[in-house]
Amino acid sequence: MAERILVINPNSTEACTQGIDEAMVPLRMAGGPQIECMTLKEGPPGVQSQADVERVVQPLARTVAARDNDCDAFVIACFSDPGLHVCREATRRPVLGIAESGILTALTLGQRFGVIAILKTSIPRHLRYVGQMGVQARFAGDRAVGLGVVELADEARTLSRMIDTGTALRDQDGADVLVMGCAGMARYRDRLQQAVGVPVVEPTQAAVAMAIGQARLKWAA
Amino acid sequence: MAERILVINPNSTEACTQGIDEAMVPLRMAGGPQIECMTLKEGPPGVQSQADVERVVQPLARTVAARDNDCDAFVIACFSDPGLHVCREATRRPVLGIAESGILTALTLGQRFGVIAILKTSIPRHLRYVGQMGVQARFAGDRAVGLGVVELADEARTLSRMIDTGTALRDQDGADVLVMGCAGMARYRDRLQQAVGVPVVEPTQAAVAMAIGQARLKWAA
Amino acid sequence: MAERILVINPNSTEACTQGIDEAMVPLRMAGGPQIECMTLKEGPPGVQSQADVERVVQPLARTVAARDNDCDAFVIACFSDPGLHVCREATRRPVLGIAESGILTALTLGQRFGVIAILKTSIPRHLRYVGQMGVQARFAGDRAVGLGVVELADEARTLSRMIDTGTALRDQDGADVLVMGCAGMARYRDRLQQAVGVPVVEPTQAAVAMAIGQARLKWAA
Amino acid sequence: MAERILVINPNSTEACTQGIDEAMVPLRMAGGPQIECMTLKEGPPGVQSQADVERVVQPLARTVAARDNDCDAFVIACFSDPGLHVCREATRRPVLGIAESGILTALTLGQRFGVIAILKTSIPRHLRYVGQMGVQARFAGDRAVGLGVVELADEARTLSRMIDTGTALRDQDGADVLVMGCAGMARYRDRLQQAVGVPVVEPTQAAVAMAIGQARLKWAA
Amino acid sequence: MAERILVINPNSTEACTQGIDEAMVPLRMAGGPQIECMTLKEGPPGVQSQADVERVVQPLARTVAARDNDCDAFVIACFSDPGLHVCREATRRPVLGIAESGILTALTLGQRFGVIAILKTSIPRHLRYVGQMGVQARFAGDRAVGLGVVELADEARTLSRMIDTGTALRDQDGADVLVMGCAGMARYRDRLQQAVGVPVVEPTQAAVAMAIGQARLKWAA
Amino acid sequence: MAERILVINPNSTEACTQGIDEAMVPLRMAGGPQIECMTLKEGPPGVQSQADVERVVQPLARTVAARDNDCDAFVIACFSDPGLHVCREATRRPVLGIAESGILTALTLGQRFGVIAILKTSIPRHLRYVGQMGVQARFAGDRAVGLGVVELADEARTLSRMIDTGTALRDQDGADVLVMGCAGMARYRDRLQQAVGVPVVEPTQAAVAMAIGQARLKWAA
Repeated sequence: MAERILVINPNSTEACTQGIDEAMVPLRMAGGPQIECMTLKEGPPGVQSQADVERVVQPLARTVAARDNDCDAFVIACFSDPGLHVCREATRRPVLGIAESGILTALTLGQRFGVIAILKTSIPRHLRYVGQMGVQARFAGDRAVGLGVVELADEARTLSRMIDTGTALRDQDGADVLVMGCAGMARYRDRLQQAVGVPVVEPTQAAVAMAIGQARLKWAA
Repeated sequence: MAERILVINPNSTEACTQGIDEAMVPLRMAGGPQIECMTLKEGPPGVQSQADVERVVQPLARTVAARDNDCDAFVIACFSDPGLHVCREATRRPVLGIAESGILTALTLGQRFGVIAILKTSIPRHLRYVGQMGVQARFAGDRAVGLGVVELADEARTLSRMIDTGTALRDQDGADVLVMGCAGMARYRDRLQQAVGVPVVEPTQAAVAMAIGQARLKWAA
Repeated sequence: MAERILVINPNSTEACTQGIDEAMVPLRMAGGPQIECMTLKEGPPGVQSQADVERVVQPLARTVAARDNDCDAFVIACFSDPGLHVCREATRRPVLGIAESGILTALTLGQRFGVIAILKTSIPRHLRYVGQMGVQARFAGDRAVGLGVVELADEARTLSRMIDTGTALRDQDGADVLVMGCAGMARYRDRLQQAVGVPVVEPTQAAVAMAIGQARLKWAA
Repeated sequence: MAERILVINPNSTEACTQGIDEAMVPLRMAGGPQIECMTLKEGPPGVQSQADVERVVQPLARTVAARDNDCDAFVIACFSDPGLHVCREATRRPVLGIAESGILTALTLGQRFGVIAILKTSIPRHLRYVGQMGVQARFAGDRAVGLGVVELADEARTLSRMIDTGTALRDQDGADVLVMGCAGMARYRDRLQQAVGVPVVEPTQAAVAMAIGQARLKWAA
Repeated sequence: MAERILVINPNSTEACTQGIDEAMVPLRMAGGPQIECMTLKEGPPGVQSQADVERVVQPLARTVAARDNDCDAFVIACFSDPGLHVCREATRRPVLGIAESGILTALTLGQRFGVIAILKTSIPRHLRYVGQMGVQARFAGDRAVGLGVVELADEARTLSRMIDTGTALRDQDGADVLVMGCAGMARYRDRLQQAVGVPVVEPTQAAVAMAIGQARLKWAA
Repeated sequence: MAERILVINPNSTEACTQGIDEAMVPLRMAGGPQIECMTLKEGPPGVQSQADVERVVQPLARTVAARDNDCDAFVIACFSDPGLHVCREATRRPVLGIAESGILTALTLGQRFGVIAILKTSIPRHLRYVGQMGVQARFAGDRAVGLGVVELADEARTLSRMIDTGTALRDQDGADVLVMGCAGMARYRDRLQQAVGVPVVEPTQAAVAMAIGQARLKWAA
């Protein structure tokens, strides 16, 4: 029977989960793992503050524990990787965080990665995480598009700001690969990469790709 | 039509390529990429010295260029990642090195990785590479099994030395995840992990897993 | 009116809070801040696993928010610094974590610090934190006394193991200053320092000392 | 009897010592350590060049040795931390340098610290020191206000340049906490913090705060 | 009999070798080592791409092996240090690369070095090398003059662009010493240094200077 | 007229200066710089403590200033590099420290350098310096021979302890190149290298070799 990968969107916004689900299409292969995307009902509409991050940790750990029997790998689809280590403690199966996987994948595509954050207030959190990951030597910079929820609904404007942000990371910070610092916005990836001219990593796809390998290889089981 | 991943064993030893090919079984999925393992005929019987590393660089780059039309991703199956950057220059498709992918994958499975080298003389080369990758903060140590070609044919002895080496990395260097510093020895992975009690990364499997994701996502094309 | 510093013991063991409270004696000065030590009732008996760490984060943040009106600084008295950043988000007043303050204070007393952990399983968490703090260049090592709760009740045995652990950090890892990786065990500090012969930092004292300064200087208000 | 902390201004300018003394007010507590501020008569009018730094080292060490009997902690109030390690050798009591303490305190208030230097020529010296401290991962940048002695007498102009410098550190270098790279200018701290909108560390206050803790805890004695 | 240092220009452009040879004048001393500059006939007209780098590795190693009998030290005069480690494996005599020696020499002349690259595409290669060397803490930046072969023939324009690039490294990246990221352009060094006002390292001279010492001291023999 | 390099032994022991002078023989070339070795009369018999280091700083700076007219480069022949930066400020001519030059030269001869200190108490000072130099990624370890002045007079015993120390650095710390952490003991270098089997850098020779290059190239003048 096929393996199953559970991708958990820790915010409660179904549209975001749907965006993630659509991004999974190229990773669904006959004979490959099932990829199930779920919304964390207990989550806030969006994970923005540190309080939002902490709020979803316990529900994430409970979800992983509850689904340990019928899943072969888990992906936490929020760029703050909330609860990554407690979820890893809660199961012997692989648990991937999209920030970790997105950044590690970027290291195969360029020498210095830049992060496109949504909010400026997330940047210190990202910096702490880059330090914790021990990859600061490859880090070019982190810049925010700086749009609020309402403005993010305007797709043209969002893309335009992402392109501006990516261009600043490339030209002012020396990034030669970009990581999208958010989940659920895979639809912008192609256009962003084309406009900025450096590889762009969509982190949920990167994490699920790594999860497929780990689920198939059963290193943890 | 399915994607194709070309895994190139840069040494000329068919038995090694065969070992790699057998390790691909769990990564072959009905609707997933074809995984073709080939032997680099121009290669030496084994890649041991820096001269061996350099000797295979040009043939690898030629092979990648020659197969650029019918492949979607390439994996260089030697733990020195010979020619990784020139191969990346030779194609727009993703090229993965097994040292790079093995180490990056290890970063998702433990906090400090140890490398089990075959030969002691490879260690300074590995250290240079860890520095180049910028992941020294996560590096616990690199120790060699120190067996010659003839001794490596003795499977029980090889496993025993690998276990000793992994145990030293765990207990003396503080490694909580191990990377096998060689290709074609996947058959030891399970027993090694069981004996040492920390996750063990087989790097060719790790690299092909990442290649599957990149081939499907077509970020580079 | 005098300032007030709230020291929160995130585990529910009153004896531990009492140990912390006794360690505050030298830091209580006429005219100086009040130092109030409280037990987090929602906490587990001890904070050992990552799950324990995460479990206390939300109660800690709530406590800080609830006491924001009558306190001038907060200290989280657990060596995992649970919820440090969310508590900082919850108040404009200074919040100190004992791991952070203990390590920073150690940097003024020696060139390379060693951490005496209670449990071996905490070490990867400590390593992630040292990385996040960006002070790995000064880090000598982290070793665990490896005693369970029952054994820790045996004071002579605990001291003896702490001395063994500190000696190994000094001799094998090159530490010239030690940080006690726990709260509530200040009573061992003097004897430990005398036995090992290098300065020993008791982290709750270190954190409260920094909190006194920040409370008096009112930089945050 | 109360402890005594000796704060030594290594330059011979009494007005500077007086500025330091005034900044001590919030750190003087009825039952806390006496804080005595003294001028190093042998010092130059200001410590600007490396020659100035070296010139005060021996007098500082002699002063520490001479006052070892009646002091419980020492603070060297010059941002080059002249003679810090020789003074530590000259006494068993704690010796704090204001650059070291200021930077360590900043690490509790933000993720990346910026230094406001007075003179551009001090910046390489600061960079060497940040490297020696091993905290480069948390360092955002170092920029000079670039005013001479006469211009520094113009308070409005000095504040204005400090604000410009701090703003550049925040916006161009990504600092989210600032350290004033000088002693005796505490009177600007509040206005600077208010104008730039990130925490500002006055390093002599930071060092004396740490000295109070170490004097009370008597770890060294 | 005098020692002999062989300086190998890995590109096939005689004019470049001649520029190198002229730069050797101050390093030729009556009783000192002979300095022979040779052109690698198998090399491309210029080493620009990673393919160019790899192409010269084997011929370089063969040349070193062939001349092992009559030379006392070798210098590889290309800023990518092609084949440095395989050449070191091919002889017991010292082999110096101009990037390595140039950067190490710069560390004695300033606190943060900037690299003036010829081509922008070389920058990721340089960054990998700085990481491999482990000197990233001293690295200010790498910027390209961005002139093609034809434009480089215009000496005034080349100098002007070098000055612009060096000035940007000084003012925007904080470099206080510059390394010329190329061989054979020593004639610009004096004017560049005068214009930018910080020391400029000509890397082939730096490498030959180190080679003279190692050849005389015979540490390797 | 030939250049002149002044090598200053900061301790007052003539026998040490004589040892340095003898080590200069291979670096004295007809047509090359004069190499003058002098004893700093104001120095202590040996530079051991931090107080000793600081004591010689001012006399060194005065000596450099006094000899600025008739010298082309200066070498400070003490492994603590006392006064290096103030001497650089005192002249426009190159000033080399033997610790800095010895370590940088070691980086061309191996991947990880170990330092053989004389006294254990020097190790924290060396660690600070390695951090200040920004080369910690290449640092294997620092171990002391631990002999007093009287014992050092016993040449056989000294060599034997140096070999033990170097062997521990090689086998326990992974050093593949050693730096002698002292001046004036060049006579042990050959035997030490032969016994331990890795390259050994004598730092005064390394510094003078770099000084020859910088004196000839006149980059600073």
